Amino acid sequence: MMQKLDVEAVRTGDRIALARTISEVENQTREGRLALSGLVSHTGKAHLVGITGSPGTGKSTLVSQLAKEFRNPPPAFTPQKVGILAVDPTSPFSGGAVLGDRVRMRDLAGDEGIFIRSMASRGALGGLSAATAAAAEVLDAAGYGVILIETVGAGQDDVEIVRLAHTTIVVEAPDLGDEVQAIKAGILEIADILVLNKADLPGVARAERALRSALELADATRPFTENSGHHRDQVKTSRIMQKGWRPPLIKTIATSGQGTAELYQAIMAHKQHLMDDKLWDDKNAARLTNELEHHLRENLYGNWQKGIDPDTYQRVLKSVLSHRLSPQQAALDLLKQPK
Amino acid sequence: MMQKLDVEAVRTGDRIALARTISEVENQTREGRLALSGLVSHTGKAHLVGITGSPGTGKSTLVSQLAKEFRNPPPAFTPQKVGILAVDPTSPFSGGAVLGDRVRMRDLAGDEGIFIRSMASRGALGGLSAATAAAAEVLDAAGYGVILIETVGAGQDDVEIVRLAHTTIVVEAPDLGDEVQAIKAGILEIADILVLNKADLPGVARAERALRSALELADATRPFTENSGHHRDQVKTSRIMQKGWRPPLIKTIATSGQGTAELYQAIMAHKQHLMDDKLWDDKNAARLTNELEHHLRENLYGNWQKGIDPDTYQRVLKSVLSHRLSPQQAALDLLKQPK
Repeated sequence: MMQKLDVEAVRTGDRIALARTISEVENQTREGRLALSGLVSHTGKAHLVGITGSPGTGKSTLVSQLAKEFRNPPPAFTPQKVGILAVDPTSPFSGGAVLGDRVRMRDLAGDEGIFIRSMASRGALGGLSAATAAAAEVLDAAGYGVILIETVGAGQDDVEIVRLAHTTIVVEAPDLGDEVQAIKAGILEIADILVLNKADLPGVARAERALRSALELADATRPFTENSGHHRDQVKTSRIMQKGWRPPLIKTIATSGQGTAELYQAIMAHKQHLMDDKLWDDKNAARLTNELEHHLRENLYGNWQKGIDPDTYQRVLKSVLSHRLSPQQAALDLLKQPK
Repeated sequence: MMQKLDVEAVRTGDRIALARTISEVENQTREGRLALSGLVSHTGKAHLVGITGSPGTGKSTLVSQLAKEFRNPPPAFTPQKVGILAVDPTSPFSGGAVLGDRVRMRDLAGDEGIFIRSMASRGALGGLSAATAAAAEVLDAAGYGVILIETVGAGQDDVEIVRLAHTTIVVEAPDLGDEVQAIKAGILEIADILVLNKADLPGVARAERALRSALELADATRPFTENSGHHRDQVKTSRIMQKGWRPPLIKTIATSGQGTAELYQAIMAHKQHLMDDKLWDDKNAARLTNELEHHLRENLYGNWQKGIDPDTYQRVLKSVLSHRLSPQQAALDLLKQPK
């Protein structure tokens, strides 16, 4: 048996214990699960902030600057320990596509109050967002007051990961083309805060106009409640109504730090809004319910795989591969088989 | 009971029956499943061609031009009926983000040999690629010789959908920024054919150099076989070794049709390559196995949901929401409950 993970060391700020626990959790080991059970009573305090947007918008630089804001906030606020989870669902193969981003984050490495972790796709649909959620729980229990979850890309995966967050920031940049603006309508609908980064580039005025129009449109169509991908039947709380919150548009130049203090203030204002309207607990509940369902699904399939007779499976699979049986029907047939 | 879908009408080219069958299949109704069972013996002939790439690369225009090439090929080739599945995983909410693309496709609408269908995200992880696979099967059985599957974005979802295809085309464009090139390393690894569209824009020479470097890198690291997202344990055939195929880079200007004939030839060359090396059947097998697993997972969870005592579920969920039990442990506890 592996050495038991030191839950108390994680709690008291041991970075090596923290890194090791996140690894075990990410790899879904028994040790990781037991560590989470030991840590779970200390969770529920961290502010999860999701940052998403297309490649080229300068997200990573913005995240670095934001981390500094949380470390050295204006006088009215308390400095927080900052966890950064950099999630890359776009590279299931090489896993190293965001190397440049990691390099840029090195300027944060000297600060013991910042913990950075890259989460690469593990190939399993939904697995990445579950691993990210669990890593966030470990950081939460370890006293990281804010966890910045940065995702690359603009697909369903990002939406799933961003749903973990209490506060979702969508980053845009000028001159990514008109088509981008149109296509991002869906992404804008999930934005609590919209950032127009690279505000020193030409075309910023035009981009700002386009984004303000898109925000108005998104605001008009913003659903009151919305079904989570995982919980169509049981739980309908994933998208929480945000009465009274109109997503602000903040212009930043992350490379120089311009506008990032304003962004920090907007994030804190959104947190306050969530607290005031009891939405904070609702968001936590939606996230945890999603996680529970994910693990139920994984375990159900894993258990079934262990129980099925391999010959039976191969026989049915062969019928599918020879176009005698549709995959849909084959699944029903297999589940009627005695195990 | 609903009226039975007319499988024979689908087979003999009735477009209304075809559209209706795809809808039922997409909505995962019993009628749709029965129709697929009736059609499955007629599948296995269509060439599935996936087209992916970032917003702004002009994919939709390229797909329209490609459809025309397949309808009016050079003398050595046979014209094919063309199915187009336009898949948008980026907009789980509004579903209307690719409206502009649909409008552009209207110039194909006069041709009875072209069938266009938009597939929007249904909110369920993995559900979109399963729905797309099933729609492709219906088109296959209906005699559509080539099915162009166009996806928006660059996330894991696209990778999943693109894995359906026999031939994967990755579309790039000049001036999308250096970061894009770097981040797309993972996507390039899945390209059978790389297209540099908008080849009339400035920066095309620089983009071409960058893409050729990236292709060489991808070629060097291209895995021989690779685990499918759905089949880590049972099936490892999703990524088929492509010995002897070096992805060509083709420059196009889709708006004027320049280069699309060459792209057509490259697609047909890749098909021949797949046939010669028996990879065609392997790709079909990987796709069908993925589909089977998807339906197994969905059914297992659906059945479990029906069987669980709601009070038990709520009690365990409450422990999770109050941070007394981790979602991981809660799933194990629930699965030990008698149903």
